[in-house]
Amino acid sequence: MAGDAYVLIMAGGGGTRMWPASRKRRPKQFLPILDGGRTLLGATVERVQGLVPDERILVVTAADQVDEVLRTAPSVPRENIVIEPQARNTAPCIGLGALEVLRRDPAAVLAVLPSDQWVRDAVGYRATLARAIDVARDGAIVTIGIVPTAPETGFGYLEVGAETERGARVVERFVEKPDRATAEKYLAARRYLWNSGMFFFACKRLLETVRMHMPELASILHAIEREPERTAELYPQAPSVSIDYGVMEKLPRGDVFCVPGEFGWNDVGSWSALGELRPHDADGNTIATENGVTVDARGNILYSDGKRVIAAIGVEDLVIVATDDAILVMPRSRAQDVREVVKCLETTNRKEFL
Amino acid sequence: MAGDAYVLIMAGGGGTRMWPASRKRRPKQFLPILDGGRTLLGATVERVQGLVPDERILVVTAADQVDEVLRTAPSVPRENIVIEPQARNTAPCIGLGALEVLRRDPAAVLAVLPSDQWVRDAVGYRATLARAIDVARDGAIVTIGIVPTAPETGFGYLEVGAETERGARVVERFVEKPDRATAEKYLAARRYLWNSGMFFFACKRLLETVRMHMPELASILHAIEREPERTAELYPQAPSVSIDYGVMEKLPRGDVFCVPGEFGWNDVGSWSALGELRPHDADGNTIATENGVTVDARGNILYSDGKRVIAAIGVEDLVIVATDDAILVMPRSRAQDVREVVKCLETTNRKEFL
Repeated sequence: MAGDAYVLIMAGGGGTRMWPASRKRRPKQFLPILDGGRTLLGATVERVQGLVPDERILVVTAADQVDEVLRTAPSVPRENIVIEPQARNTAPCIGLGALEVLRRDPAAVLAVLPSDQWVRDAVGYRATLARAIDVARDGAIVTIGIVPTAPETGFGYLEVGAETERGARVVERFVEKPDRATAEKYLAARRYLWNSGMFFFACKRLLETVRMHMPELASILHAIEREPERTAELYPQAPSVSIDYGVMEKLPRGDVFCVPGEFGWNDVGSWSALGELRPHDADGNTIATENGVTVDARGNILYSDGKRVIAAIGVEDLVIVATDDAILVMPRSRAQDVREVVKCLETTNRKEFL
Repeated sequence: MAGDAYVLIMAGGGGTRMWPASRKRRPKQFLPILDGGRTLLGATVERVQGLVPDERILVVTAADQVDEVLRTAPSVPRENIVIEPQARNTAPCIGLGALEVLRRDPAAVLAVLPSDQWVRDAVGYRATLARAIDVARDGAIVTIGIVPTAPETGFGYLEVGAETERGARVVERFVEKPDRATAEKYLAARRYLWNSGMFFFACKRLLETVRMHMPELASILHAIEREPERTAELYPQAPSVSIDYGVMEKLPRGDVFCVPGEFGWNDVGSWSALGELRPHDADGNTIATENGVTVDARGNILYSDGKRVIAAIGVEDLVIVATDDAILVMPRSRAQDVREVVKCLETTNRKEFL
């Protein structure tokens, strides 16, 4: 009864946390921010290639981003790109992907992965995913919980319980983003893991679960299953809800398991992440651009696509990002505040820069 | 015997002190750095228009910058643009201009002005120049000395003596750029003025003086006078020497006079000058660009040509300059160190950015 493992990479959705490089139409998974100009999506696909064959790696994305997917991840077969007619958050997106996988293998086990995360140790990552797939094959809904290395306030957490015989742990509950003090308690307590946003399940099991907890979505998915040619019309009617909120958090204790992961993980939530993703020079500067010039400058992150020069003199711990039509300068510690600029551009009607 | 007053604006020469906006082929006098996108050259021409009629305003420049002059200072008649076949410093440049003016009026008095200085009070400026022209008409070589407002170490100084009956003062000697302590003494002493680089003289008188102190240049100018069609061949043979060093500093005491000037003057020697040249917002930011966005940012200078966004979050007293192919970020206090970047681009063979 155990089917093949498939990987579904979610590469839709916008995002401006790495503005001005990321734009509404070019989210961060498509940016050449990694060494050698690789993208987060490209690196994600590469990373799972050691886990399942190419024909079982699928990517969900928007219609106008198909070319971007094919360019940045050329190993992905065109017929494995699932078009999401409209961004409706993760629950509908995963449902749509699960339908596609079910068509190919009714017994398939699916690994759902974000396209925009960074991992240091690909081997450890694949071993963890393989374990999660195994546990899911037994009928569980499985997540990967990242073992925290800092009191992060930007992530949701999983509170986990006893270890099972397969190295997985019971998920006691999903916890909202904590404040700093709570995050420090979580870090010390050692039974809180970062919610990585990776999910593993048998496709059939997932759809059953959706039927139970999101009947509205289930009926839309059912209609799409019967009349796939009406997907573009039906899908946008799905409720825009995350898989965490819509399904995971509603499952009874004992249904959700978590495999702990320790492989150097970063969700690339802001420009400051670049300091971890890429090497730095002797002065601690991360020069993620072809023509960076630093004079008496320390701990800065310089990013640009293309050949333009970025010159930094006598500055410290800044992020400097340059694109054709926008420049951003801020301390690394203020990287979350990019949204303030985005908001300002929105309210002052300069949307062409978003 | 007293002829008409002419103005000769020196707009040749390169310069990279305002890199990356200024380039070897586009020095700072052609940059739209002033309010309303005006250039320093354009503002200089405008400023002297109240002093002499357009047909007596001449501009010396390089052949490949004639179009730039005509665009930025359209009131200058094309026949008043004097082509300098090669940059040979100010003594040959002024000699060439004086020849041209002499052809038009053998008794002409000439005001020689840099093209890249900024002045706050145009009325006071013109009054000072008119006085200098008057004194020059009597046969003296005249300069304008700016009454210091700070212990500047970036300028040469004029040590001045007794006041004459015309409000001018005898120049006792030309003084090199001082160190900080000396500059402070100069400021306190009240008989040291900044050498503005503006000169006033009857053309005939200047050429006599050149014959006496720079005979080599004099003979080249004489040859050019007789065979103007050979200018392109002869001029590059002139010694590359400044008028200060070649002539002014060699004149005996009593030959050079100085008219003090107090009209808000800035030689725009670096990006930090922009903070004086242009208005700032309530947070002290000078936004010299169409789409500047600041969030919790104070005392910064943002400059870009064109429409690109410059966004600054949480930074203080920085200069941020952006052009199509280069970005520069530095503290205002480090604005002199642009040359370090220029040097680095030179030595690493990235001259296309200079």
